[in-house]
Amino acid sequence: MVYKKITLIGTSKDGFDAATTDAVDRAERTLDNILWIEVENLGVEIATVDSREYQAEVEVAFELAE
Amino acid sequence: MVYKKITLIGTSKDGFDAATTDAVDRAERTLDNILWIEVENLGVEIATVDSREYQAEVEVAFELAE
Amino acid sequence: MVYKKITLIGTSKDGFDAATTDAVDRAERTLDNILWIEVENLGVEIATVDSREYQAEVEVAFELAE
Amino acid sequence: MVYKKITLIGTSKDGFDAATTDAVDRAERTLDNILWIEVENLGVEIATVDSREYQAEVEVAFELAE
Amino acid sequence: MVYKKITLIGTSKDGFDAATTDAVDRAERTLDNILWIEVENLGVEIATVDSREYQAEVEVAFELAE
Amino acid sequence: MVYKKITLIGTSKDGFDAATTDAVDRAERTLDNILWIEVENLGVEIATVDSREYQAEVEVAFELAE
Amino acid sequence: MVYKKITLIGTSKDGFDAATTDAVDRAERTLDNILWIEVENLGVEIATVDSREYQAEVEVAFELAE
Amino acid sequence: MVYKKITLIGTSKDGFDAATTDAVDRAERTLDNILWIEVENLGVEIATVDSREYQAEVEVAFELAE
Amino acid sequence: MVYKKITLIGTSKDGFDAATTDAVDRAERTLDNILWIEVENLGVEIATVDSREYQAEVEVAFELAE
Amino acid sequence: MVYKKITLIGTSKDGFDAATTDAVDRAERTLDNILWIEVENLGVEIATVDSREYQAEVEVAFELAE
Amino acid sequence: MVYKKITLIGTSKDGFDAATTDAVDRAERTLDNILWIEVENLGVEIATVDSREYQAEVEVAFELAE
Amino acid sequence: MVYKKITLIGTSKDGFDAATTDAVDRAERTLDNILWIEVENLGVEIATVDSREYQAEVEVAFELAE
Repeated sequence: MVYKKITLIGTSKDGFDAATTDAVDRAERTLDNILWIEVENLGVEIATVDSREYQAEVEVAFELAE
Repeated sequence: MVYKKITLIGTSKDGFDAATTDAVDRAERTLDNILWIEVENLGVEIATVDSREYQAEVEVAFELAE
Repeated sequence: MVYKKITLIGTSKDGFDAATTDAVDRAERTLDNILWIEVENLGVEIATVDSREYQAEVEVAFELAE
Repeated sequence: MVYKKITLIGTSKDGFDAATTDAVDRAERTLDNILWIEVENLGVEIATVDSREYQAEVEVAFELAE
Repeated sequence: MVYKKITLIGTSKDGFDAATTDAVDRAERTLDNILWIEVENLGVEIATVDSREYQAEVEVAFELAE
Repeated sequence: MVYKKITLIGTSKDGFDAATTDAVDRAERTLDNILWIEVENLGVEIATVDSREYQAEVEVAFELAE
Repeated sequence: MVYKKITLIGTSKDGFDAATTDAVDRAERTLDNILWIEVENLGVEIATVDSREYQAEVEVAFELAE
Repeated sequence: MVYKKITLIGTSKDGFDAATTDAVDRAERTLDNILWIEVENLGVEIATVDSREYQAEVEVAFELAE
Repeated sequence: MVYKKITLIGTSKDGFDAATTDAVDRAERTLDNILWIEVENLGVEIATVDSREYQAEVEVAFELAE
Repeated sequence: MVYKKITLIGTSKDGFDAATTDAVDRAERTLDNILWIEVENLGVEIATVDSREYQAEVEVAFELAE
Repeated sequence: MVYKKITLIGTSKDGFDAATTDAVDRAERTLDNILWIEVENLGVEIATVDSREYQAEVEVAFELAE
Repeated sequence: MVYKKITLIGTSKDGFDAATTDAVDRAERTLDNILWIEVENLGVEIATVDSREYQAEVEVAFELAE
């Protein structure tokens, strides 16, 4: 079995949990066998958004189809 | 005075704050003089749990008895 | 254009989102053009506070006036 | 010329060489011009597998088609 | 909104700016909404090329389509 | 559920797989619920041993009893 | 003698040398005794600028007045 | 042979050598076969002590009894 | 409460303890509520000084006035 | 006593143990008092060799003659 | 085959590409089989030189003669 | 001008300052133009020496002769 990892950045107005969840939700819409995610970076974008945008950069590990 | 640090991983269905609190609560059940904790890693386990399990790996610093 | 980064540690009784927000709020009281913040470290102070104090060390990037 | 890097996790019952080889074999089934791989992390999964599963997280660099 | 990051290595005979630009140019040919890039590593390949090949490994962040 | 991580260094005359296995074997003699291990460092001791001693420093994660 | 370090991000349309120079120039307008600078990060901003903006995050070390 | 590593923080009013020695002394009171220690972090606590307290966070490696 | 961290480099002819103390002394002349310092780097300058100059780069954390 | 460290990259068709051994063997042909080695990086070269070449970048510590 | 890596710091008045080239040129005057170089650090020396001196610290990998 | 860096480990019975000095002294016996040194690691060897041996791993930068 071989797994693959991709890097996503989820965003949310509400905080880091929601930003992480946002990335996981997106991953699950296109990937079938997600195993775990690891948080790589947390941040808040301020200048280019209406309010504060919490961001969670995560690595998503999933099983590659044979 | 000498302090010791141990590494725990707290878990929660609710998010990273609760996962961190979970580890601190567990540490306080067996350790008397906890000084501070440092978050080392955040992640979410998906494949082997019913739902999403937020995980916080933390280092717990406490005072060693003489 | 030149940006500057400073390092603040926000604190909160409620969790890491609030601790991060605390640092951003403080930065916005004295800085006009904040662009983004990056979370450097998360921790919880226990021994020297009444209850648990969540701490978020963040780097705040802002635009320097010409 | 532009190269791309992707992250795979190979697995094996036999050890880290075989786990690394597993990831390279998988990469070669879908990618034509692999240049090199770098080992990022080594680990052993124990709880969720029958026996011990050696894991090698590797970055695979390959040439992008024009 | 969710962003994705991929890792490219641009190359050039002229230097690191051009190697970085090479990677960005390639990314823009297939990706619509590139936000920023971060330089991860710089190097020079010597043995397997005619002359010196400057290389810039970069992470490219772009917006995922809904 | 709370996990704990400890750091062991396994040793072997035969190589890094065996050194890693050595640490896992030792952990399993005193710990009931080992989940996974992560390799932190690999090295070879030469001066103070008869021959070459391969060493694998690993973090062992296990479930804490309630 | 005590030195202080601050973190600036210089920007340029032309490349990383110019972005670094931009930060040093800015530092020299307000600081008298700059000793050296260290490059911490290089990147390119794309989405929020007209063209590509090269960025060099640098630490500037200078002598503190007694 | 398997070694284990634990993390201690030694303290001293006199400096980092003494803080390191403090941790080693403490370790030798309860551990028989200490092999080496590695300094992980150095710091000075100021606010919560009478004077300045030098701190040395060290990893202590020792031989596990069979 | 919000803390701020700044980076100083203390120097001394006598060693790293004195270089660290040099930075703390300087910080205390202009800052009222210093909490702790962390050592980031140690080095020795040789070419541009009469003798050897020990240097300690430290981060100083202090409480920001409301 | 003063030790010195040099960086070698051993190679092998057979795996990482053999690549590490290759570097140690080479070091022992010209250096008398090797103390230990530390593995810094593991990788596999693919494009410029007949088959797969396992590579182990190691630091070799040895005693300097007085 | 065994490779060795050494660390050089090239310098230039013109920028980081030229500073990197300076180190490679110097390496090629005494080493026959240079394979590649990796940039480890970039900086600018200001206080002890007439103007600004760009510096590139690089690791040079070359083939060891049998 | 090109500089070179080598890695030495100085040792002392007395502490980390003396261990660092030990490495610098050794370097100055064979190298003419030492510029600066950087401390990479500090440790204490215990098992294989009579008493405690403080060790300072340092990088020594010096000017290469033309």
